[in-house]
Order: sequence, then structure tokens, then C-alpha cells
Amino acid sequence: MPISLSELAHRTGATLAGDGTVVVSRVSTLESAGAGAIAFLTSPRYRSLLAGTRATAVIVAPEMAGQTTLPKLVSRNPYATYAKVAMILHGPERVVGGVHPSAVIDPTARVAPTAAIGPNAVVGPRTVIGERVRIGAGTVVGADAAIGDDTLLDANVTVYDRCQVGARGIVHSGVVIGADGFGMAEEEGRWLKIPQFGRVVVGADVEIGANTTIDRGAIDDTVIEDDVKLDNQIQVGHNCRIGAHTAIAGCVGIAGSTHIGRNCRIGGAAMIGGHLEICDNVVVSGASQVFGTISVPGEYTGAFPALPRAQWRQVASAVRRLPEIAARLRGLEKDAGDAPAGVPRERDEGER
Amino acid sequence: MPISLSELAHRTGATLAGDGTVVVSRVSTLESAGAGAIAFLTSPRYRSLLAGTRATAVIVAPEMAGQTTLPKLVSRNPYATYAKVAMILHGPERVVGGVHPSAVIDPTARVAPTAAIGPNAVVGPRTVIGERVRIGAGTVVGADAAIGDDTLLDANVTVYDRCQVGARGIVHSGVVIGADGFGMAEEEGRWLKIPQFGRVVVGADVEIGANTTIDRGAIDDTVIEDDVKLDNQIQVGHNCRIGAHTAIAGCVGIAGSTHIGRNCRIGGAAMIGGHLEICDNVVVSGASQVFGTISVPGEYTGAFPALPRAQWRQVASAVRRLPEIAARLRGLEKDAGDAPAGVPRERDEGER
Amino acid sequence: MPISLSELAHRTGATLAGDGTVVVSRVSTLESAGAGAIAFLTSPRYRSLLAGTRATAVIVAPEMAGQTTLPKLVSRNPYATYAKVAMILHGPERVVGGVHPSAVIDPTARVAPTAAIGPNAVVGPRTVIGERVRIGAGTVVGADAAIGDDTLLDANVTVYDRCQVGARGIVHSGVVIGADGFGMAEEEGRWLKIPQFGRVVVGADVEIGANTTIDRGAIDDTVIEDDVKLDNQIQVGHNCRIGAHTAIAGCVGIAGSTHIGRNCRIGGAAMIGGHLEICDNVVVSGASQVFGTISVPGEYTGAFPALPRAQWRQVASAVRRLPEIAARLRGLEKDAGDAPAGVPRERDEGER
Repeated sequence: MPISLSELAHRTGATLAGDGTVVVSRVSTLESAGAGAIAFLTSPRYRSLLAGTRATAVIVAPEMAGQTTLPKLVSRNPYATYAKVAMILHGPERVVGGVHPSAVIDPTARVAPTAAIGPNAVVGPRTVIGERVRIGAGTVVGADAAIGDDTLLDANVTVYDRCQVGARGIVHSGVVIGADGFGMAEEEGRWLKIPQFGRVVVGADVEIGANTTIDRGAIDDTVIEDDVKLDNQIQVGHNCRIGAHTAIAGCVGIAGSTHIGRNCRIGGAAMIGGHLEICDNVVVSGASQVFGTISVPGEYTGAFPALPRAQWRQVASAVRRLPEIAARLRGLEKDAGDAPAGVPRERDEGER
Repeated sequence: MPISLSELAHRTGATLAGDGTVVVSRVSTLESAGAGAIAFLTSPRYRSLLAGTRATAVIVAPEMAGQTTLPKLVSRNPYATYAKVAMILHGPERVVGGVHPSAVIDPTARVAPTAAIGPNAVVGPRTVIGERVRIGAGTVVGADAAIGDDTLLDANVTVYDRCQVGARGIVHSGVVIGADGFGMAEEEGRWLKIPQFGRVVVGADVEIGANTTIDRGAIDDTVIEDDVKLDNQIQVGHNCRIGAHTAIAGCVGIAGSTHIGRNCRIGGAAMIGGHLEICDNVVVSGASQVFGTISVPGEYTGAFPALPRAQWRQVASAVRRLPEIAARLRGLEKDAGDAPAGVPRERDEGER
Repeated sequence: MPISLSELAHRTGATLAGDGTVVVSRVSTLESAGAGAIAFLTSPRYRSLLAGTRATAVIVAPEMAGQTTLPKLVSRNPYATYAKVAMILHGPERVVGGVHPSAVIDPTARVAPTAAIGPNAVVGPRTVIGERVRIGAGTVVGADAAIGDDTLLDANVTVYDRCQVGARGIVHSGVVIGADGFGMAEEEGRWLKIPQFGRVVVGADVEIGANTTIDRGAIDDTVIEDDVKLDNQIQVGHNCRIGAHTAIAGCVGIAGSTHIGRNCRIGGAAMIGGHLEICDNVVVSGASQVFGTISVPGEYTGAFPALPRAQWRQVASAVRRLPEIAARLRGLEKDAGDAPAGVPRERDEGER
């Protein structure tokens, strides 16, 4: 589907500069672009690539526009413009509705005629499948569930009974929505299961990465608000709530009953304890652990980067001796009469 | 299925206090309860909610019984009583046995007539499926496997050839039991696969959370003992053994050939190295790393909570300089004649 | 399939010592071996087990050969010899080609006649399935994909459109190859999806563990080179490249656009940030975090082993006070006139 640059300017809201009649058919990086490709520069860091690109057109910020004579789309947010152009050129194809003969649809399910249900998919009793929904091969949607209009469930997804996914969502393969939360009571050395009968309620415009799991609530629901973006292999415990527009990178674990605010960014492999409140606009760095409530927006971090092994051995050994080091320092200060009397310099802040 | 409070007292072993003829039909939290709900108070911390609840009845500990005039179940373990009540009111429905016509059952498999096999499920040759077992849609059980009575395999589970799951188990969607362990030998810069022909043997009353993986043993078996509870996204390496009643939270990784004792609790995202022995009654805090054998019961921890970024920068920088800091401290002590001669204050304990 | 020791020597290239006419039918550990078993000793540490074993034959290194009178295979790499023997005795059975009647194969797919496609598997349009490929029950291969000769996709695997897996691969259950990378642009407080239209290209002789996910590239491809070994529950972000012969243990996360060299070893649960270059022959210890490019081969580590809780409380508290401790040390040094003037002893190295 080749398209002219002026048409792309029109559809993305970007400003056209140069020959708008050139035609492009694919997005490319500056390095690998050839004729027919539109490339993009989102960071001045890569400006040097602009000179050598063989792209037919480029997407740049206004301050970069002078750096190339190629036809271009100029945008104050070139990354967003790239997203729109890529969606126009490479977005999902429209799919013809229909149910594959091998799919097993309960007779009481309500499947919109424009929905496309793939081979060996299963839809349970009384479940509602919206308009233009695509359900991949092998995907299982339980009973009394609801999938909103235009949502894609890829192959081999599982949605448990009574769970809901809103409109325009994308749920990748291997995702499990609505398995039981981890709840049990101990009695005489044995575990008693706590039935988990809340739901998972996923809002609109939510994307959920491959093999991510979101547990159903114990009594009340687990809630994923609108426009939340979850990467792969994330675990969301029961009764969590994740606020709108929050993005969470891969391998993050969130223990039960924790509420994360709106517009947060959680870096990959961060681990967040249970029963916490994380306010809006919090950034947690990758691989950091959060064990306490956060009520002040800002960036929180706590990971130690790896070092060459010999150096790390020394560091790790010294860390273990830190309480002793601190005590010896106190001793020297005392000898030197250096510690202000009556002013305790240290306190054990304890540990969460 | 409404039920009287006196009947609940009878079936749970709790003590009835107040009007036993009131009828409840669902469990609720103290805050969200309404007429017909039974709520519970498991921690004195939430006692203030007791006054305002609209529940019809409550479950409380003896020392809290005086705090409310509502009809109540009194129990020294109110959380366990709640578990029992919730199981009575919200437990799984009895399912009618039978095999969905789309399921593919090998003719040599032995499926109990009371078992319920869902759409597109697959059961391999010579596999034995016990009484009242429920197998979800899309679940695949390989050859020569065995699933014990009353066990639930949810949708899209995979059980490899020759693996066993005991009675009364719950296996959530996406679980993989019996994939090959990670074993290979290096020869001339290439990897040679070590065939993994042990099994996974899962005991009775085991629950396994969504997308958890348990690898088969290389030669001998990987063993999960009775009443073990595994949360979501846990990885159990080949030839591990996990002792009875041990509970492991989400995202934990356990490398191969490690044995974990009975009645242990492993916090979320903890990582446990290979070839270790963890004795009974060990608690490992969330996000902690265990690289050595633990032979003394108790709680082990090792995670640093995240800090505001600016503060963390200072801490992380100082940690890297710790060996230098320690050396300078030694220098000062020497200057001060403070170090007991001949008594080495520090030793490099090395690193595991 | 019993086999004589001399035949095994011939097929594995090991040196026969003792009676080559003895026949073995299975591999076993030294402890659990009985008649008909061949056991192996790969580490001198376990030499004491050699005396008591009931194995019919053993595999040992030359320097251990004198420690037992049993018939034996002698090899300078006994672990590799064990791998070969185990593959001969316990390797996968040859499977008869054919498509299960319940599988759904698009009429435009090209499936080799020797390939075996299991129940309820799905193969999409124009996809090419090579000779002797085995595809497990419930596995879904999308459109325009390619699976190389002799590769095994176990049950419930998902391969997205246009992705490729090379020859002789093993892909375990729950693996997802080719889901969208995590890419989005922010515009006025909303996320715009960046279409992910690159592929995943997996080389030959690659093994991928259960529930591992490998995302497709945004524009260019995500590449897994030949002979890479991935354990379970690994996340590989979009546009990563993993070099040949590299082995990665379970639960590792690799963020997008990172390139890992050849012959690297990444320990379990290590987390590797995005847009990094890791050179060849790098070893990253388990549970370590890598946030910067590594251009020098060697071992990198960064994890703190867990300690008994009381001890850890003191350590963690002291770590938080480290900047203060360092400042106080500086103060003492100044008092003592101990700091070389003009030579800054410390610099804030910042944080990656």
C-alpha cells in the first residue's frame, strides 16, 4: 500500500517539507533504508546517520530539519509521528469475521458477526465477544467473560471465567488472565485454600505482553485501568490495581493488593511487594525492589550494576563487614573527641 | 446456596455467638459487605472497620468478639475459618463427568467416567486420569502420565510424558510440567544435549500457579511433595525436591538439583542457586538471593529497598568505593595505634 | 535397546577398558545404578561413590580409570561421553510422519511428508515445515513461518507469523516466538503503539526452554544464532541478537536492542538492560544486573547473598548510611592531616 508523503503528513498531522509527491511503502531505520522507505530520527545522537541514509523520506524534529535535503515530515514529536506512519504502513490487516469450523463456541455465547475466531479456539457459556474482535488459534475464553470491540487475543491465550478485557486491547500469546490469586490459610500445619472469586477487569486500550499473568481477586476485583501497557512475563497478584497510562516493562512482579498509580513507569525486572500504595507519576528503575509505600512522585532505584568478579568480591565482602566498619569509625571518632556529644550520628532505620 | 450461620458453625468447627438462624450467601470484606454477606476480621489492625460494616454476620477471634453485636463465628484462627466458609459458599461447582467431543483421547488412555475433559484437550497413550478430575480446554497431557483423583488442570496446561500429579491438586493455565531440564556438555565449542529422562512427580494437595514451569529430572525425578503451594511464574529446575507444606511466592527461580525442606516459605522473586540444601522451616525474604546451603532454620534476607534516585546514586557510588573506604579506615587506625597488633580485624570471607 | 560397551565406545569415540561384551540399557547415577546400567563420574569430588556403585559399566576420565575394576569407557571429557551415551540409550524415538486428523493445516502450508503434526496443532498459510519436524499437540505456527528439518516444537508452543526456527532445534512448551516487542510513543499523555513488523530468526541447533518468550523486532529482526541454549522463563526483547554457542540460564531478562556475543554464559535470573553490547566470552553470574556495555571478556557479578535476617538488617542499614560514613571518614582524615592535598580520593562515579 504505497502512499504519498503529503498524504502521510495529512493523516499524521506532521508538517510536510520538500516534495510531497514522493511515495513510500515501508518504515525503515536510517541505516537500512532504501528506495521507498521512510526513516526517522528521534534523537540528535544519531544525527550523523541522516547524511548517509538512502531513505526516500525522513521524519525529523524541527531543529533537525535543516540537516537533510530529503523530503520530510517535520514533527515536534517525531517518535509519535513514526508510530502513526508505521501504523498506517504496517498496521494489522483487516480481518474478515467468522468462526473457524474447528473452534468450539458455546451456544449461549454471543459472538459479534464481525469477530474472527481462529482454529481450535474455545469460547465458554454466556461470554460476549465484541465487534471485530480477533481470537487466535488455541485461545480459551471461559464462561461469563467479555472481550471488548476491536480487541485482539493472540494464539494460546487463556481468559478465565467472568473476566473482562476492554476495547482495542492487544493480548499476546501465553497470557493468563484470571487464574487464582495465591491465597491460603494455615491450620495445624496444612494449607487451606482461600477461594478466589473476584474477577480481573482490564480497561480499554490495554496491551499485555506474552506469558504475562494477572490473577483474579480474592473477593473484590483485580483492575487494570485504561491505556496500561504491560510487557512480557509480568506477574500481577490478586487485588492489584494499576492506574491508567502506566507502563510496566518485562519480568516485573507485583505482589497482591498493591495499587500502582497513573502514569507510572516500572523498569524491567523490578519487584514490588504486596499491600503497597504507589502514587501517580512514580518511576521505578529496572531491577529495583520496592517494599514500602511511595507517596512522593519521582524516580526510585536500588539496583547494583555488576562489576568484574574480582572487584565485586572485595565490595561484597566489605558490605558484609559494614556494621563493623561503622563501629570502628565510631571508635576512632570517640578517640578523637570528634563526635558531638549527645547527638547520635546514626540510627538504625531498620528494614522494611 | 444460602446457608444459616449455625450450619456454618457446625461445618467449620467455629463457635456460634448470636443469632444462628441468620442466613448468608457470600463472603465479603468488612467495607464492601451488605445484607447476606459474612465478613471477617483477621487482624486487630482493621478493627475499626468492624463498627461500620453492613455484613449480616462476621468471623472474629475470641478477643475481638466483644467489639461487635453482629451474629458471629468465633474462632482462634479466623483466617482458616474464613477459608472454610468461603470454600462452602464459593468453592468450585461439581462438574458432570464426560469427554468433550473435540477432545482427543488416545484409545489406550484410562479416563475415569467421572472425569470431565474439556474442548480440544489431548490425553496421550496409556495415561491414567483419575476420578472427578477436570481437564480444561486446550490442555495437553502426554503419554504414560497420571493425574490423581479430584485434581484440576485448568485450560492450556501441558503435562509431559510420564509425569505424575497427585490427588486434589490445582494446576493453573500455562503451567508446564516435565519439560527438559537445562543440561548440556561442551565439546570442542559445541553443546551436546544431555537427554532428560527423569520425571516430575507432584504429590497430593499441590497447587501450581499460572505459567509456572517444573522441569523433569535428568536421570532421577524432580519431586514436589504433598501440600506444596507454588504461585505463578516460578521456575523449578531439574532434580529439585521441594518438601511438604512449603509455600513459594511468584517469580521465584530455583536452579537444578536444589532441595528445599518442609514448611519453608520463599518470598516472591527470590532466586535460589543450584545444588543447595535448604533445611526445613527456612523463610527466605522476597527478592533475596540464596547461593549457599542453609542448614539452620530461620529467616534469611538480602534485598535492598529502592531509594529516591539521587540518594541511591550516592549509596551505590559509596558501595563501589567500600574496599577503599575500609583501607583508609585501617590506615587511620594504624596512625592512631588503634588496631590490636596481630589480630586481623578483617578477613575476606570471599563470595559464594 | 541394550547395547554392548564396545559398541558404545565405538559410537562415542571413548576408549574401552575392560570387558567390552557387557551390555547396558540405561544411564544411571553411581548411587542408584544397578545391573544393566552405565554410570559416570565427571568430578573427582564424587570419587568415593565409584567404589560402591552397582553399575555394570562406568564412564571416567583417564586419571580416575585406576579407581575401579569395572568395565569402562575412558574419556578426557566424561561429561560429553555421558551425553552421547545417554542420547544413544535415551534419545527421542523416531516418530512416524503424518498429520493428526484434528490438526488444522492451511492448504497453502508446505508440510514435509516425514513431519509429524500432533492433535489440535495449527499451521498457517504458506508456512514451511521441514523434514522430520515434530509439532506437539496444541502448538500454533502462524503464517509465512518456517520450521527447519528435525526440529521439535513441543505441545502448546506459539510461533507468530513470518518467524523462523532453524534445523535440529528443540522448543519446549509454552514458548512464544514473535510476539510484539514493547514499543510505544507517548503523545499528549496517551500511548501510541509502534507496530512491530520485524521477525524472530532462530538459527540451527537452538534449544528454547519452557515459557521463554522472544519478541519480534520492531523493524529489523531479533536474531538467535546457531547453537544458542536458552533455559526456561527467559525474556528476550525486540531486536536483541544472541551470539552463537551462548547459554542462558532460567529467568533471565534481556531488554530490547541488546547484543550478546558468542560463547557467553548468563547465570539464572540475571537482568540485562537495553541497547547494550556484551562482547564474546562474557560470563554474567546469576542474579546480577548488567546496565552497561561490556567490552572486556571475563566474569561479571553483582549479587548479594542473603544473610540471617538480623545480620542483614544491620548491613542494609549501614549501606544506606554509607555516604555519611564516607563523609565522616573524610573528616577524620582531614583532622589527622592524612589526606594528600590536591588528590581527590573519591569521585562520584555516578550510576548507570
